[in-house]
Amino acid sequence: MKLNALIAGVGMTRFGKHLDRGMKSLGEEAITMALNDAGVEKSAIQAAWMGNAAAGLITGQECIGGQVILRGMGIGAIPVINVENACASSSTAFEQAAAMVTAGLYDIVLAVGTEKLYHVDKVKTFSAFGGAVDVEGLAEIMADLKRNAEASGATAASDGAGKNRSMFMDIYASGARAHMEAYGTTAEQFAAVSAKNSFHGHLNERAQFREELTVEEVLAQPMIAEPLTRPMCSPIGDGAAAVVVVSEKKAREMGLVNPVKAVSSVLRSGWDHAKGDKYSGSADLCISTAYEEAAIGPEDLSLVELHDASAPSEIMTYDTLGLCAKGEGGILVESGATKLGGKIPVNTSGGLLRKGHPIGATGIAQLVELTEQLRGTAGARQVEGAKVGLAHNGGGVIGNDAAAMCVTILTR
Amino acid sequence: MKLNALIAGVGMTRFGKHLDRGMKSLGEEAITMALNDAGVEKSAIQAAWMGNAAAGLITGQECIGGQVILRGMGIGAIPVINVENACASSSTAFEQAAAMVTAGLYDIVLAVGTEKLYHVDKVKTFSAFGGAVDVEGLAEIMADLKRNAEASGATAASDGAGKNRSMFMDIYASGARAHMEAYGTTAEQFAAVSAKNSFHGHLNERAQFREELTVEEVLAQPMIAEPLTRPMCSPIGDGAAAVVVVSEKKAREMGLVNPVKAVSSVLRSGWDHAKGDKYSGSADLCISTAYEEAAIGPEDLSLVELHDASAPSEIMTYDTLGLCAKGEGGILVESGATKLGGKIPVNTSGGLLRKGHPIGATGIAQLVELTEQLRGTAGARQVEGAKVGLAHNGGGVIGNDAAAMCVTILTR
Repeated sequence: MKLNALIAGVGMTRFGKHLDRGMKSLGEEAITMALNDAGVEKSAIQAAWMGNAAAGLITGQECIGGQVILRGMGIGAIPVINVENACASSSTAFEQAAAMVTAGLYDIVLAVGTEKLYHVDKVKTFSAFGGAVDVEGLAEIMADLKRNAEASGATAASDGAGKNRSMFMDIYASGARAHMEAYGTTAEQFAAVSAKNSFHGHLNERAQFREELTVEEVLAQPMIAEPLTRPMCSPIGDGAAAVVVVSEKKAREMGLVNPVKAVSSVLRSGWDHAKGDKYSGSADLCISTAYEEAAIGPEDLSLVELHDASAPSEIMTYDTLGLCAKGEGGILVESGATKLGGKIPVNTSGGLLRKGHPIGATGIAQLVELTEQLRGTAGARQVEGAKVGLAHNGGGVIGNDAAAMCVTILTR
Repeated sequence: MKLNALIAGVGMTRFGKHLDRGMKSLGEEAITMALNDAGVEKSAIQAAWMGNAAAGLITGQECIGGQVILRGMGIGAIPVINVENACASSSTAFEQAAAMVTAGLYDIVLAVGTEKLYHVDKVKTFSAFGGAVDVEGLAEIMADLKRNAEASGATAASDGAGKNRSMFMDIYASGARAHMEAYGTTAEQFAAVSAKNSFHGHLNERAQFREELTVEEVLAQPMIAEPLTRPMCSPIGDGAAAVVVVSEKKAREMGLVNPVKAVSSVLRSGWDHAKGDKYSGSADLCISTAYEEAAIGPEDLSLVELHDASAPSEIMTYDTLGLCAKGEGGILVESGATKLGGKIPVNTSGGLLRKGHPIGATGIAQLVELTEQLRGTAGARQVEGAKVGLAHNGGGVIGNDAAAMCVTILTR
């Protein structure tokens, strides 16, 4: 979707373990920050899109999560649309909000992502991840993963439907092994992603993990699913993030000076793509379309926030983004090009690996990072002269593709 | 939202107990019917909004329910937005879809509602309803209901958080008792709603209950929560419903002759309204706004599908719609005015009480009924010369209001 929507305010909580706090508290903190950042009253908001993925299965809060948060802080009467798309839930919320503003249907709206994954009963948290695949086909997925791990002689993390977080890491590990075989990518290169993002996370006070790790330290950590050690897997976390999206007309009324602008957000679902398809999958389709809509290419990007649910995911996304030739993502990360100070910094926030990954909040958190970078207010993590930022976020697995993929381009 | 979107096709499954069928099978049936009705190929669809409320808690399918259904039937690559708003989930899906088409962002899209409530483990079904209230405030809600029931000496249905379906019926029963006290409404009048809707359901082959009941038979059934006997409470059910929404341009290309048109859909959330507010609650706000947007009044309506989750809900909605003076809903139903053949037939489908109430599917199912009526193809249930239909659907409870309320007006 070609967009013309402006970001008037952003806010997010620290990501991590908030055992003592619920969705209402986390959501309210992020929304209040975004409203304050935009300098608008709660009563100005005309509609809200609320992204969440797993609350139903973890807290029992289904159906009206957005209203519960908003009403708790005194925002009522407006249209509230609760949106789900696994890890891409709040990217979807933003895409819908920005599309409506672009079309002139609203002038000032909220897009919010919230997630509460930590639960005293860990089984609840793990079982919730199973909701992001085709549940009716779960047995088949599990059997495939088992066969694949056995065939490659790899250790596997999951042992059944009850360990679904590990099931996702088995899916990622299986892709990682295929990438190693096809392109000679190494475990050291995967570790280099985690080390780089740990450096970024070290500089981000909202990150779940602040400790800086070397490649050696990443490799020395416990194996989750071969070749993924623990710091190569995104953690469980709680958190919320929010943006205030406004029209050009509203931005003028508010006296916003050169605000960050959303120019494109492309949401697509996966499909049974085959050799010969124009696009190799939903990520390729979204990225190509977003570049076209924004009239830019990879060479124009100042920075990227991408969906590093596992370290290999980051490497595999580099070539899809056109940051390197096919299969050369491992070389790219080792070159330092994607580290702060490099040619094209990736995941300056620390990414999902280190900033954390409260599923439904991740998409908007990526946009918070891009917005602060484009405003030049990212402090120690600032990318010099940042003009164009891209967020890439995929959610759920269906067949051999992401169930929901969303790519957003912001400029200033 | 003022709309200019056309309904090119509708489809729905029979509502009821489909223990042997999952969401994929139900969703595919409804979508295929809608596509066939519109005479379009699957490949023509540009985007889909998928409404569902409880699958996460019942089947474990969260996050990507829409993609799972669509991909299963060979629809991929398009944007899929999973939408939740309790009972108003698919009303919300339609509102979003129709808004996007009205704004010119798409020319042909799907809006779908699906629900799978029956489960071999009934506790799962009942506990899912708890997701539609403020879960963090659940204890308080339960205590209020208990106090209220005790104060009025009434039998109550729920005895704790584990029986949440009954909890909703306690909420409805509490409202019913207040209405009886304030306006002299009688249990016979509540029973008259169920009897009328049973007559309509008797004529609807897709209804969960086909048996026709008299007022006396309704009153003789077991008490669920005083004064509500079983036929005054909407049942648990499975089902799906779908519509194909198109732009004027697309409708011309397709050669559609005088298609049913969506002219207004107003989605609002509840708030802490007080005496002195212009509107008495979200239903009042939605209905008033929808009449204004459609430039009509209650006297222009040919028929209404409204959210009769309980029989008293229907009576209470009559005056909000302006079909009768404040508090006179009981008299209106007894007069026969809202029965097929009466001045303003209400719930000709059988309503939630008799057609059934698979939560996420209800909103679109209401629009299926209105569309068939406006096309003049409703068979034995046909309202003569139907020109304007209104759907009213509320979802979830928050404070003293619906969490999500949606009113849609269709014309021909």
